[in-house]
Amino acid sequence: MRISQLSAQSGVPVGTIKYYLREGLLHDGTLTAATQASYDESHLERLSLIRALVGPAGLSISATRKVFETLDDRGTPLFELLGQVHHTTGPPISDEQDLRAAQALLDRWGWRCETDDLPTVGALARALDGLAAAGFELTPEQLDDYAARVLGIATEEVDRIPVDSPEAAARYVALGTVLVEPLILALRRLGHQHASRERFGGTTPS
Amino acid sequence: MRISQLSAQSGVPVGTIKYYLREGLLHDGTLTAATQASYDESHLERLSLIRALVGPAGLSISATRKVFETLDDRGTPLFELLGQVHHTTGPPISDEQDLRAAQALLDRWGWRCETDDLPTVGALARALDGLAAAGFELTPEQLDDYAARVLGIATEEVDRIPVDSPEAAARYVALGTVLVEPLILALRRLGHQHASRERFGGTTPS
Repeated sequence: MRISQLSAQSGVPVGTIKYYLREGLLHDGTLTAATQASYDESHLERLSLIRALVGPAGLSISATRKVFETLDDRGTPLFELLGQVHHTTGPPISDEQDLRAAQALLDRWGWRCETDDLPTVGALARALDGLAAAGFELTPEQLDDYAARVLGIATEEVDRIPVDSPEAAARYVALGTVLVEPLILALRRLGHQHASRERFGGTTPS
Repeated sequence: MRISQLSAQSGVPVGTIKYYLREGLLHDGTLTAATQASYDESHLERLSLIRALVGPAGLSISATRKVFETLDDRGTPLFELLGQVHHTTGPPISDEQDLRAAQALLDRWGWRCETDDLPTVGALARALDGLAAAGFELTPEQLDDYAARVLGIATEEVDRIPVDSPEAAARYVALGTVLVEPLILALRRLGHQHASRERFGGTTPS
């Protein structure tokens, strides 16, 4: 199909499609004339992925490109893929002191993580640091409780990773990691409201 | 104390303190001369809050100002505070169609949320929308599982809200809502790696 049809079918404006092509997010079509290319189902599918990642998941163009580079490299084993998605979408690492505190927690829980996945250990370190800086430190028991409950969620998710094809697994991991985050955060806030009403009753206390 | 001492004790540069004063995040000190003001413990405490909210929690200056307006309004009841924190730190609302689908889910779970807290229902709607757009739709059973597990976390958290003083409750809710989010997300990613190793064994599959 032509770029105008690709636009009509995907709902993405032609100018935006051209931008994604220039940025290397979308693969080139097949040239049918000097200035005309033909696009197919693979472009439609990739466009829906791009829209999901730069839209609701809130990734930057360059982070999205890195996720695709990982997705397109079929040889990447699953563990490395997890680490790479985290590298791509995670915050910069903290200083060494913070990392040691975070690593000590992981050791206490017996969580075996990628030793080279510093960004994610760094994200834990930064989160703990932020709580401490605000005088909102959690007790070891409270941290253990979070760890156990969140590991329950993560284990369910890993059990759902399709193992029949590396491409399907890669797609699942990359999308599941970033797209489910807003779901969990929204559910937590709504859960707070429901639990508050349950605890404090149906009327608003003054 | 003078602004230079406030800077030394808080670790926040004088220029940054002046910026927070101009932006209304930090309350003015007591004037001791035409161009000199005196600061106290309340300024130190507020500075640590500002650093936590604009740092690890990632709030904008204007969102931080709104959280403080809520914190400083001691008359705000707890339910309204929850809604206001969500308003301040949540994304813009989705379209009406999406909201109905999200509301239907909440009804199915029997979650009673603030009817005027549209931003948070909107956040749920956007999360579902993002998953659907990427072809990553969750089954009703999977959504129920997320809801039950996250409600477990939220209920624990609500049980920990201090009820002895409205100010303590307000501070707890505002900080706990935003500062624990990065903790949960980091734990989930690390939990994925741990669960992957547990499921697929200690060696990297090729």
